[in-house]
Amino acid sequence: MRHQVTSPTKPSAAVVVPPDTASLSPAEARALFRAGLAVPTAGWSAGYAQANLIIVPKAQAFDVLLFAQRNPKPCPILGVLDAGETAGPLLAGGDIRTDVPKYTVYEDGVKVAEPTDITPYWRDDLVTFIVGCSFTFEAALQEAGIRVAHIDQGVNVPMYRTSVRCEPAGAMAGPLVVSMRPIPASQVADAARVTSRYPAVHGAPVHVGNPAEIGIEDLGRPDFGDPVEVPEGCIPVFWACGVTPQAAVMESRPALAIGHAPGHMLITDAKDSAYLVP
Amino acid sequence: MRHQVTSPTKPSAAVVVPPDTASLSPAEARALFRAGLAVPTAGWSAGYAQANLIIVPKAQAFDVLLFAQRNPKPCPILGVLDAGETAGPLLAGGDIRTDVPKYTVYEDGVKVAEPTDITPYWRDDLVTFIVGCSFTFEAALQEAGIRVAHIDQGVNVPMYRTSVRCEPAGAMAGPLVVSMRPIPASQVADAARVTSRYPAVHGAPVHVGNPAEIGIEDLGRPDFGDPVEVPEGCIPVFWACGVTPQAAVMESRPALAIGHAPGHMLITDAKDSAYLVP
Repeated sequence: MRHQVTSPTKPSAAVVVPPDTASLSPAEARALFRAGLAVPTAGWSAGYAQANLIIVPKAQAFDVLLFAQRNPKPCPILGVLDAGETAGPLLAGGDIRTDVPKYTVYEDGVKVAEPTDITPYWRDDLVTFIVGCSFTFEAALQEAGIRVAHIDQGVNVPMYRTSVRCEPAGAMAGPLVVSMRPIPASQVADAARVTSRYPAVHGAPVHVGNPAEIGIEDLGRPDFGDPVEVPEGCIPVFWACGVTPQAAVMESRPALAIGHAPGHMLITDAKDSAYLVP
Repeated sequence: MRHQVTSPTKPSAAVVVPPDTASLSPAEARALFRAGLAVPTAGWSAGYAQANLIIVPKAQAFDVLLFAQRNPKPCPILGVLDAGETAGPLLAGGDIRTDVPKYTVYEDGVKVAEPTDITPYWRDDLVTFIVGCSFTFEAALQEAGIRVAHIDQGVNVPMYRTSVRCEPAGAMAGPLVVSMRPIPASQVADAARVTSRYPAVHGAPVHVGNPAEIGIEDLGRPDFGDPVEVPEGCIPVFWACGVTPQAAVMESRPALAIGHAPGHMLITDAKDSAYLVP
């Protein structure tokens, strides 16, 4: 896992990664990020749901919400903050402008900054969408005896733009983005079964096997995150990814949009188990 | 079932209810309504999903969609037509302005008309929300051996405003509206189990038993639809109802809003089974 601290705006030098990040409460984790720590969040606050972020001006909010409604697998909405609101039930006592370890800021669809604090960009008309993340079902995969390669290898999950187009909504259009986990052939069915029980956090896989069929040319060069080795006997399995709405926002080129930096998630107060269906 | 034809705008006199409405295709059913037939749709086009309708100007559309996102049990969105659009994949070859048997038109939150054709009210900025309906799971209840009283008694399902408030969204706020079906005590668990497998069309009951606990004073006087008898040995069971967004729209008093008339639903091309989860 990369532990570089790249915050230009928060007093990060004094903040170090505690020894047992899995046992931190979501509020404790968010306090560390608020203080300037900028690291990927995989494995943090075990049992609590992590989430993707997409923040747009109110004028674009209907298109984003409709895009999510039409593309529920990549864009499962866990919560929406009202225009200008910076806290809510998923981050009690928190502040959405500082509590994510690292953000991505887009102006006219172009990435202009990766700050650790978006307070300087904040406007009262910004609407925050909190989107489910597949990290939520990884503990369930592990409990079912299925190894999660990027956790084993200590890196960020690999994510890819695909040739599959999402259903457009107003100005929002873009490719389906997927995350990939190599799964032993004998466990692919189990992985599909386990994750299908978490429909609010991407659910069952969208593709199993040949990456080329969904337009991925080289598994070793992900568009976001880090590459992972695909061990002998494993098949690449692809899940819809919450970076998808960011990709569509980039294509729609609003004057301003803000997301989380891939792998640097919002740690919410919701339990993973809250998103499990029978 | 009430078979009165109350259309001021469609040539209804010549249109009669065919003998076997259950076997009509959705397109055939919509053609009859387009021609002026104005009857409740319970039992029509067996196996196909019926839907609630809420149509608002684009300026109100974000609030309606966010209200639905925050209140998914009463407001499960099956589809959204873009501003000005009158057809879509749920009503292939249809026209949302004529294909519902009867509509309800609100101006400034006050019901001003119940036409069978909303073409005179149509504007290019109107956004149509198609919302799931509990009629979808009634066939599954019957297949599980559970009688559906309002079908047996040949009336519209009874619907009630409750004292439970929905989660507000912008200008949208209002009470949870529920539908009621009397269920034998020994089958309440089965009814909950069967309907929980249809989360996109209201899912499991929101309340079982004493109506007063959710602010319903008299089961014999529903706010919408018709009263049904509660047979000896049966318990009233309440499901979230797709009339809920109409109630919230009325409270938010937009200049114009249009819904279906309760019980007079859009018959979609989607199969009931499309909304069944494992």
